[in-house]
Amino acid sequence: MHGIEFEITPASGKTRRQPLPEYIEGYGEVRAFEGAFANVGVGISDHRPRRSKSVRPGQTKLLASIEEALDRAKVQDGMTLSFHHHLRNGDHVLNLVMEAVALRGVRDLTLAVSSIFPVHEPLVALMDAGVVTGLATNYMSGPVAKAVSQGRLKKPAVMMTHGGRPRAIECGDLPVDIAFIAAPCSDPYGNCNGVSGKSACGALGYAVADAQYADVVVVVTDHLAAYPASPAEITQTMVDYVVEVPSIGDPQGIVSGTTRITRDPVGLAIAHKAAQVIQASGLLEDGFSFQTGAGGTSLAVAAELKNMMKEAGIVGSFAAGGITGYLVDMLEEGLFRNLLDVQCFDLRAVESYRDNPRHLPMDASMYANPFSKGAVVNQLDVMILGATEIDLDFNVNVTTGSDGTIMGGSGGHSDTAAGAKLAMVVTQLVKARLPIVRRHVTTITTPGETVDVLVTDHGIAVNPARQDLIASLEASGLEVVSIEALLALAESMTGIPDEITFSDDIVAVVEYRDGTVVDVVRRTK
Amino acid sequence: MHGIEFEITPASGKTRRQPLPEYIEGYGEVRAFEGAFANVGVGISDHRPRRSKSVRPGQTKLLASIEEALDRAKVQDGMTLSFHHHLRNGDHVLNLVMEAVALRGVRDLTLAVSSIFPVHEPLVALMDAGVVTGLATNYMSGPVAKAVSQGRLKKPAVMMTHGGRPRAIECGDLPVDIAFIAAPCSDPYGNCNGVSGKSACGALGYAVADAQYADVVVVVTDHLAAYPASPAEITQTMVDYVVEVPSIGDPQGIVSGTTRITRDPVGLAIAHKAAQVIQASGLLEDGFSFQTGAGGTSLAVAAELKNMMKEAGIVGSFAAGGITGYLVDMLEEGLFRNLLDVQCFDLRAVESYRDNPRHLPMDASMYANPFSKGAVVNQLDVMILGATEIDLDFNVNVTTGSDGTIMGGSGGHSDTAAGAKLAMVVTQLVKARLPIVRRHVTTITTPGETVDVLVTDHGIAVNPARQDLIASLEASGLEVVSIEALLALAESMTGIPDEITFSDDIVAVVEYRDGTVVDVVRRTK
Repeated sequence: MHGIEFEITPASGKTRRQPLPEYIEGYGEVRAFEGAFANVGVGISDHRPRRSKSVRPGQTKLLASIEEALDRAKVQDGMTLSFHHHLRNGDHVLNLVMEAVALRGVRDLTLAVSSIFPVHEPLVALMDAGVVTGLATNYMSGPVAKAVSQGRLKKPAVMMTHGGRPRAIECGDLPVDIAFIAAPCSDPYGNCNGVSGKSACGALGYAVADAQYADVVVVVTDHLAAYPASPAEITQTMVDYVVEVPSIGDPQGIVSGTTRITRDPVGLAIAHKAAQVIQASGLLEDGFSFQTGAGGTSLAVAAELKNMMKEAGIVGSFAAGGITGYLVDMLEEGLFRNLLDVQCFDLRAVESYRDNPRHLPMDASMYANPFSKGAVVNQLDVMILGATEIDLDFNVNVTTGSDGTIMGGSGGHSDTAAGAKLAMVVTQLVKARLPIVRRHVTTITTPGETVDVLVTDHGIAVNPARQDLIASLEASGLEVVSIEALLALAESMTGIPDEITFSDDIVAVVEYRDGTVVDVVRRTK
Repeated sequence: MHGIEFEITPASGKTRRQPLPEYIEGYGEVRAFEGAFANVGVGISDHRPRRSKSVRPGQTKLLASIEEALDRAKVQDGMTLSFHHHLRNGDHVLNLVMEAVALRGVRDLTLAVSSIFPVHEPLVALMDAGVVTGLATNYMSGPVAKAVSQGRLKKPAVMMTHGGRPRAIECGDLPVDIAFIAAPCSDPYGNCNGVSGKSACGALGYAVADAQYADVVVVVTDHLAAYPASPAEITQTMVDYVVEVPSIGDPQGIVSGTTRITRDPVGLAIAHKAAQVIQASGLLEDGFSFQTGAGGTSLAVAAELKNMMKEAGIVGSFAAGGITGYLVDMLEEGLFRNLLDVQCFDLRAVESYRDNPRHLPMDASMYANPFSKGAVVNQLDVMILGATEIDLDFNVNVTTGSDGTIMGGSGGHSDTAAGAKLAMVVTQLVKARLPIVRRHVTTITTPGETVDVLVTDHGIAVNPARQDLIASLEASGLEVVSIEALLALAESMTGIPDEITFSDDIVAVVEYRDGTVVDVVRRTK
């Protein structure tokens, strides 16, 4: 802890930050973030042509091995290969493919991976060896994230969002040469789904843009079904080749089992207050829509909502996002008419997605692409968000830890914050003796202009841009404090944290969902 | 009847035909047909960019009227508007929209309509008035077909196939400015389906390419559902505007009620022989796949198959195409694992499509697009086809009647013939005192190289290119005759039909599924 006074300027831009560079080596020209909706509805997103290799009657797509697929797809230096993260920390496919790629002596590849988990540790050696020199991802944790933070990837990693990634693929900002689709079930013609087979993971929403736009699409499965596999979340018209392997993943790592509501009284108190804020906002009425993460406090908010909806006889329209058994219960109890599911978080969600016709698929573009003709996030009433840090401008960091190391990323954080009528951050004010409210966040993941309210165990702060919300909360008897007051309180509890010292080296570029740059991550000293 | 001797040349090209023009006014350069697979797997089909107008949170897509949609879509002279035919002869939407368009004084429009029915008669006046000067369709019958045949459309109509149309839309050969989607159910954000509402028609497969590729997509519905409408066969990401109207169609015309097996003993005998051919072909084993039309004789073939499959304990993989209640029965009895449905022909099919998860959707591109990464037609074992005429080269005409007037079109005829392992034409040898086997067909719809066998009430003829099939049939004790013998027999019964005299004016261009020109239709004198 140190005593350096941090400058707090008045008006907007309260927190001083280093300006963005105009050009980043290995990334290119920087188009700086100009506002959450500066490019939405203005820019026209032209798809880049998809080269479709037509398949004749009698032609087979089933290949003997990943090696044969790499031959057919003509993998070569400098290509971009894409993967998706539905198998989460149980995924075998990225490592299997990259091992085969590395053995061929191919170099300078960029990987477009929707999310990276600890299981992907073998990538670190490939980064060190120059096999992989670029990385675009929406989230990363574990050894790869640490190695990127250390500057061991040649080019800066590009951190995207769940909606920004399909936008980039569709627009041609992120052209994919070969997409590998890890499919728990596929037929030999490429119709595939995630609901059957020993590696069932549920929805395949993050893989769809890859399948639609990559030059070559390879399905990798460990459960080859008879034609036609049904349902087909990704259809034969998108797939060039199918490869069967003994195992695409470890079921233990694919779904997390049962997700649980927090039992921590502090978390429960925050959740209760969050529910009161939703109530006071006036949004909790028939047709209510809702998204939350799978964290214990977030689920506790859902539990509070459930009781309130039952009491008031409210039927919501939908809950969305990554789906947990908890939301399945709410669907089955009639509290929501539908679930819109981009990814299943647990086995109960997988089963419901398979069996309940009101549990609907949505691909990542439908979920969150800001340049689409209207993403599902645009229809959200309330989004419950987490935060590693939140600053006086309500900017949120979920990308880096307070030591400056990458330990996450936006995922759908920025997308849902931008879309929802009420984007609410729920968090303890202090965690692990560190204040969550900061003068400036280490990394901006989600711009504060899209965050409406912060609910902590020490008070509720509302973004000053939402005077209407302040009025509603106060009319309901809820006390609203300034975020500056929460900062002061937090710092009184923890002291002012040491500032991290960074080098000039940029290890990651944080892209907003529209492809502009909202921040960069520099290597720590 | 006349006595003019028609020249029968030896070898291939037995039937003499006028050569195709190199250029057709109002159509352009003619790329002549070069073989069913000459362009498949060779040409690369580049999608043209889709201009996606991004929609912000809070923005509504629901408009007050078709007029407002025309304003927003900026309809203007020379545009191409698209419609689909799931509401068949009950469709109100094309007429509603075109009435509003005509009132604005817009001219020189091209309509891309998947099929045209008698209900679309008001188009004739718009053709005469120069409001509509171009037409691309896969099938037309009734007054519009007659008017086109009379040369009342300024440009030649372009007759496509069910697979050629999405190919043309995806490749940019048929760029669509505004697509109108007649949707029996839609939510205000454009998620729509055909399974609920008073105008339920089932699958919406023919509308999908339009929704994906048109510059502006307008959903027209008479059943506005709460968000999110489920299921969503066409999703919100494809749709710009939604308009609610009192009625999109007449249920009596939308689904035909019950389809029935023929009771005509001649038809039943043909069906029995057709089933014997399938049996003899060796294709009838587990995993068998099958498509047939909804005609009485075709359904009788399905009935014969059903008995054979039951007796032999065979479980087929799928039946495909436009689906009838008859195929639903076979699904429910376990004779096929799945149905792949692009369009429902009757109410029983609509209900099954809505309720049975093994009754799967396929869009027209997945069904039949020859440039896709493998269409469903490629997976067909047996296709049962009709014919208005079939010639000595096995070329089939289902486009024009024997008076030279347009009364149909390929629909999926050419697509399934090209894809199926066994493409079989079933027909009486003589209908309405006219021979079905001809020296030359009036119009080539489906090239003979893709037709394997003709089954008539007077004998079975096999395409000489299929010596293997001849051997199989003869080994099974089935008698095979030459198509020349069938021609001679037919002509002995009817005499040689008068030749139709045509003018030089081309009223329609018949495109093969790959976009090459397989024939033209000239105005009769």
